Amino acid sequence: MLIGQSGGATAVINASLIGALEAALDSGKVGRILGMRHGIEGVLKRDFIDLTSLSQERRNLLRLTPSSALGTGRYKVTPDDLDPILDQLARDDVRYLLYIGGNDSADTVHKLAMHAARRDQNLAFMSIPKTVDNDLAETHHCPGYGSVCRYIANFTRDAIYDTFASPQLYAVKFIEVMGRDAGWVTAAGALAMTGDEADLAPLLLLPERPPRDTDEIVALIKDDVARRGWSVVVVPETLQDASGRYVGGDTPNFVDSFGHEYYASPGAALSQVLTSAGLRARYDKPGTSARMSNVMASSVDLAEAEALGAEAARLAIAGETAKMTALRQNDQGGMDIVAVPVERVANRVRLLDDAFIGVDGHSVTDAFHDYALPLLGPDP
Amino acid sequence: MLIGQSGGATAVINASLIGALEAALDSGKVGRILGMRHGIEGVLKRDFIDLTSLSQERRNLLRLTPSSALGTGRYKVTPDDLDPILDQLARDDVRYLLYIGGNDSADTVHKLAMHAARRDQNLAFMSIPKTVDNDLAETHHCPGYGSVCRYIANFTRDAIYDTFASPQLYAVKFIEVMGRDAGWVTAAGALAMTGDEADLAPLLLLPERPPRDTDEIVALIKDDVARRGWSVVVVPETLQDASGRYVGGDTPNFVDSFGHEYYASPGAALSQVLTSAGLRARYDKPGTSARMSNVMASSVDLAEAEALGAEAARLAIAGETAKMTALRQNDQGGMDIVAVPVERVANRVRLLDDAFIGVDGHSVTDAFHDYALPLLGPDP
Repeated sequence: MLIGQSGGATAVINASLIGALEAALDSGKVGRILGMRHGIEGVLKRDFIDLTSLSQERRNLLRLTPSSALGTGRYKVTPDDLDPILDQLARDDVRYLLYIGGNDSADTVHKLAMHAARRDQNLAFMSIPKTVDNDLAETHHCPGYGSVCRYIANFTRDAIYDTFASPQLYAVKFIEVMGRDAGWVTAAGALAMTGDEADLAPLLLLPERPPRDTDEIVALIKDDVARRGWSVVVVPETLQDASGRYVGGDTPNFVDSFGHEYYASPGAALSQVLTSAGLRARYDKPGTSARMSNVMASSVDLAEAEALGAEAARLAIAGETAKMTALRQNDQGGMDIVAVPVERVANRVRLLDDAFIGVDGHSVTDAFHDYALPLLGPDP
Repeated sequence: MLIGQSGGATAVINASLIGALEAALDSGKVGRILGMRHGIEGVLKRDFIDLTSLSQERRNLLRLTPSSALGTGRYKVTPDDLDPILDQLARDDVRYLLYIGGNDSADTVHKLAMHAARRDQNLAFMSIPKTVDNDLAETHHCPGYGSVCRYIANFTRDAIYDTFASPQLYAVKFIEVMGRDAGWVTAAGALAMTGDEADLAPLLLLPERPPRDTDEIVALIKDDVARRGWSVVVVPETLQDASGRYVGGDTPNFVDSFGHEYYASPGAALSQVLTSAGLRARYDKPGTSARMSNVMASSVDLAEAEALGAEAARLAIAGETAKMTALRQNDQGGMDIVAVPVERVANRVRLLDDAFIGVDGHSVTDAFHDYALPLLGPDP
């Protein structure tokens, strides 16, 4: 069996790795379990780590350790890579390949599984979901999301009580978060304030409700300050307006030697615009710690990540292929683990549900609180 | 008795408030205890909160609550303010004024105490130290610093393990932190990695060892990447080079309507420079959560903040004035609380000790670990 990790490292991706590893060991049907270094590139380079005899003590530590123990990557498999990868897997007599990642990783698994079938190669491929962005189709939520929710909710709460204590210094605070094209991580900022603190909820700038332009954002925040005396605004790092322009600036402020374009931070850009408009503003950017912190990791998230990894290993050994393990809510409100065709996940993006977005477009509904709060664990 | 809070809110400033309040109540010698809203401006505006009958339950909650319960401020007292403030205090029959804050606040206390003496006004002034910047003279360390150390150490650790797992995506990560002109908060990043993880320590850009120019920083980081394959760099938000130019750019990229100058973020600026030089780089900016997080607050820090507040109240009632309570290390390595003349603290800045800075200028010594690690509490 060969296991890989792909995309951004998280607080719980190693729990999925250990879940899969231990299920494979427990099955008694897998002679050797390898990890690929830095994702699928590890296969092309034949860069493996043997995990078979990892001690129980090391496994228990790794289960709770953030980051990506195997090393991670974002290599996009090309059609020309498929045969070399499958040839390499055949040479190493790999029978099961498990890949932990998001929709790009699901696409890799899908392509490899289809190509292996065309070649009549007997090889089971399973995808294990992982992304703090929570944007995978066919699963109630994704491992990593509960922990990032807990982090962003607490971070936003800190920013709100700080701003509330000194609005005359900085009336406006932006919190710039991850989340790509979906507003799930942004929405987590609203989990900070419930019940009798609901009046202190932050404003959310959601990709699902793009602002017409920067002027609309300024007007929105000015209204909020007029009403509350301060405003805390959660903004995705890649926010675009309704016409597709990046709020950080409609031309990249920098293009690197590989042609990658870098847009100015929307937090930085909006802080300047607001300050020009007479409201002193600044921004925070929690960055990688949000998806990596073991202090803030949710115990529910850790347990689910491990269970999804374990079930993927069991299903692969039982003969399933081209599936992703997923969470489905049962009638009691708990989570069942199911397997879904990986092609229904590959390269698709699940946006924040309409039912989770408040009518004003800048808040979340009670339904979102009901959806997300249990993911943070017993001590949100 | 009148109590105020000033400067940036922290995770432990309310512990000092409760310490002072309860010591005053316990003394049986203070009839009424008021809080000023938003610092000394609260006196000028006669904006007070009566704390005398705050319930034990509320006090216990507030003791552990971050932010600044009274509201905070950064108003700089002018010579023309002194008489109006002292007149107001006389009208309200204030006998003791306690002010929780940093060196600016100590200066306010110093000026008021001197002017009250000139007027023969019978009024005791005490300063209670508070700053995550840890830059106050005459005290071993400052309340707020232990908690920010715990936060920044963990944040840096997360960034290091993330970068370590995927150096091919981003080889370089900057972490932009607070700390004004001193490197104490920056140095906290190095507490992340000790013992057999010492090889994973971040690079520190310390104000006490300013880089000659940006080229020197680029060369330093390139060397680090050549050696380790990646680099994580902790940088103060106000970093200047040896000639006093802001590393974020030597001209402000923005001046607001009040004439405040805004320099580009050094994290953003250096990320661009490094990426241009062929090393993909990005930055995180933990911002206010670093000084506000109750999850990351150090239990040692909370206890010291409360004790320093309580002792200030007791000393004021006993007739002391123009002093600040401070921590002094005793022969057993523990901390004693002493009182120091506030004029020796006012407007002075304590830089990071030379003995705490490594010979390379970008690391800390064992002496710094010995100094700072105990402040993080039993579970760093």
